Amino acid sequence: MKEIKLQKNVLSKNDVIAAELRKQFTQKRLLVLNLLSSPGSGKTSLLEETAKALGSSLRFAVIEGDLQTERDADRIRKYGVKAVQINTGRGCHLDANMIAGAVTQLDLDSIDVLFIENVGNLVCPAAYDLGETAAVLLVSTTEGDDKPAKYPTAFLKADLLVLNKIDLAPYTNFSTERFREDAARIKPKLKMIEVSCTTGAGIDQWIQWLEEQIKAKKIL
Amino acid sequence: MKEIKLQKNVLSKNDVIAAELRKQFTQKRLLVLNLLSSPGSGKTSLLEETAKALGSSLRFAVIEGDLQTERDADRIRKYGVKAVQINTGRGCHLDANMIAGAVTQLDLDSIDVLFIENVGNLVCPAAYDLGETAAVLLVSTTEGDDKPAKYPTAFLKADLLVLNKIDLAPYTNFSTERFREDAARIKPKLKMIEVSCTTGAGIDQWIQWLEEQIKAKKIL
Repeated sequence: MKEIKLQKNVLSKNDVIAAELRKQFTQKRLLVLNLLSSPGSGKTSLLEETAKALGSSLRFAVIEGDLQTERDADRIRKYGVKAVQINTGRGCHLDANMIAGAVTQLDLDSIDVLFIENVGNLVCPAAYDLGETAAVLLVSTTEGDDKPAKYPTAFLKADLLVLNKIDLAPYTNFSTERFREDAARIKPKLKMIEVSCTTGAGIDQWIQWLEEQIKAKKIL
Repeated sequence: MKEIKLQKNVLSKNDVIAAELRKQFTQKRLLVLNLLSSPGSGKTSLLEETAKALGSSLRFAVIEGDLQTERDADRIRKYGVKAVQINTGRGCHLDANMIAGAVTQLDLDSIDVLFIENVGNLVCPAAYDLGETAAVLLVSTTEGDDKPAKYPTAFLKADLLVLNKIDLAPYTNFSTERFREDAARIKPKLKMIEVSCTTGAGIDQWIQWLEEQIKAKKIL
């Protein structure tokens, strides 16, 4: 019982900081996207494709969460995008306090979108609010179509589902239909975009969704 | 500070139960393998291939760890293998207490090998001893070759590294050489076996490794 109570307290403290962050982001009309996925589903690749597609027309920055290394931040920086790396050590997720620390290294007035690339993990990151506008869940076809039923909390948290590596689907037994149905069972009406960061297929739909979200922020 | 202290206590309690389990497994000369990987790397597929290859000549049982569903246990049961499913809810890993509960549902005297398929997650399961003889880490080529540097704790815990989905490697930018070098940097001399659960390539090497471990247990 003691452990459960403490987890509650930790989460409440996280929620207080997340609420402060959300207030700050809203005031600045900043779109903040929390990217969740398994290790290696293609979060950094999606950000690279975004940088390629929009170049300097999209003003964005990235907060990278990893146990170790600056590799993902370095990949993003190659495109001239500001990236702040958080190393969590043995920590399985980012929390709002880490984000509060990272945003002090960013000039939020000079950007329209802040991407937060969470630690590669379908479990723990789903439990922590980072003050984001929306959560984007990436799943790749090579992980199998049974992920919605097995990791429901991540699908419940998601505002957009991006199915990546559709170019590899023909070499696997992945069924897009089964995946879509299972995801809808967890969260009806969850929008899904199918992409391949390798071939570039579907990236235009991702960019369109992104531009709609930015537009909505500016109008609000 | 309070949270860190509590985590220590929880881990110590886990270690006490894990030590009891290890003693029990050793007395029975039972090989217990803790399978770790990201979601969808192919843990269940590897067990299916094991059942196909060894049939009734290997007496084994499986403890399946998942947030939700009995899907993995059902896949294994199709081969006539006894499988106990643990659903962790929102829990990101199995712990020794869950294993202690599950083994009461198994006749340990009638098996030679117990596989524990951990929750799909490269972070949390690496921190919990389950009383296993050895930890087997699965990584699939589609996850990218940067996993050793990014998830060092899982590689440090591993006694065997199984690289799966080598049939898909030609369609990705995965470099086996880079992966091997990075893994060796984290844990020198970590043995690696390359397999494809789809084509069956390398499964013979996995079976050979498994038989060597069983043999060693019986001799000891």
